Amino acid sequence: MIWVQGRITLAPRSRGFHLVTREILDGIDGLAQIRVGLLHLLLQHTSASLTLNENASPDVRRDFESWFDDAVPERARYWTHTLEGSDDMPAHIKASLLGPSLVLPLHQGRPALGTWQGIYLCEHRDHGGPRSLVATAFGEG
Amino acid sequence: MIWVQGRITLAPRSRGFHLVTREILDGIDGLAQIRVGLLHLLLQHTSASLTLNENASPDVRRDFESWFDDAVPERARYWTHTLEGSDDMPAHIKASLLGPSLVLPLHQGRPALGTWQGIYLCEHRDHGGPRSLVATAFGEG
Amino acid sequence: MIWVQGRITLAPRSRGFHLVTREILDGIDGLAQIRVGLLHLLLQHTSASLTLNENASPDVRRDFESWFDDAVPERARYWTHTLEGSDDMPAHIKASLLGPSLVLPLHQGRPALGTWQGIYLCEHRDHGGPRSLVATAFGEG
Repeated sequence: MIWVQGRITLAPRSRGFHLVTREILDGIDGLAQIRVGLLHLLLQHTSASLTLNENASPDVRRDFESWFDDAVPERARYWTHTLEGSDDMPAHIKASLLGPSLVLPLHQGRPALGTWQGIYLCEHRDHGGPRSLVATAFGEG
Repeated sequence: MIWVQGRITLAPRSRGFHLVTREILDGIDGLAQIRVGLLHLLLQHTSASLTLNENASPDVRRDFESWFDDAVPERARYWTHTLEGSDDMPAHIKASLLGPSLVLPLHQGRPALGTWQGIYLCEHRDHGGPRSLVATAFGEG
Repeated sequence: MIWVQGRITLAPRSRGFHLVTREILDGIDGLAQIRVGLLHLLLQHTSASLTLNENASPDVRRDFESWFDDAVPERARYWTHTLEGSDDMPAHIKASLLGPSLVLPLHQGRPALGTWQGIYLCEHRDHGGPRSLVATAFGEG
């Protein structure tokens, strides 16, 4: 059994959905040795999230932002947690809708993703800053 | 440690929510040998998803389709990614809301699901075709 | 390799979002021995869910309930599965939006959560009763 665990700091990004597959995979040493296994990623935040979606058109990522902004509005009558800014509470909801973690199968040293699947960092705050991620890979060599 | 990894091709299904527990479990050889472990499933697509929910009433699955169609409408003013059809962009959003993967505990050779839990294939496209899934099971024999 | 698997019964809670990090971690024997590994949690129900979110302000958890009640209304024209009460079908939808499971990295015998991350039990029914959870931890000692 091979175990690899480390922390990756993702560069700060603007509010929106960003393709970070390469940035994440380049940050993990030792994936290439794992013949069959899993890769787990946890974003250590409550106002940003990770998801898998289309890795081609930037249109798709823009439309993600539009839908989420519409579905979780900043100005809603029911918000009571408003002290940290109008983008804060919607960011918490969006983060839980998408979730802070991903688990990907590893096959012959690489994540066995579909052709069109890429990893999105979903930045739900206006000024989220750098984001910390714990990567854990394990499997058989 | 036992590791089992393989690909399953799910039969094409109409747009909606479909119970596929049996189809998936029958597609994985070697589960029965794992006394304690995990089963990970990844759908390799960005317009379909997996979830666990009620395995009894077909009503529940129909109401899932109704809610998701209402919450992520095909005709919204904010869509810009419209080239692949009006069902495409909503399918991407729905796929990320539910997620492409599941992790289930294995106990005595079987997933330790609750009495009412079944695996849904959530087909968000009008004509999604067959769907590929990577199954990875591991644990102690 | 260390494997630990057990069942935890969470005390009944009112409808809403509840911080249960301590209750869950105290229910799992042997975590402290795992130097690097993962912890998987599965709630064995289809009308409650687990998520990670802010562990500080109770305001945040109240606003979660408000948003989810607004987004998945009890009285919608499209519900057909209404036999088990008006809170039942919305509970199924909410449960799948948030998901029944979590995977957390283990590092030096503890979940490597962010400073502000805590585990929420999301109780979507009016009278959900006690909730069963299967915890599976594994890794290297």
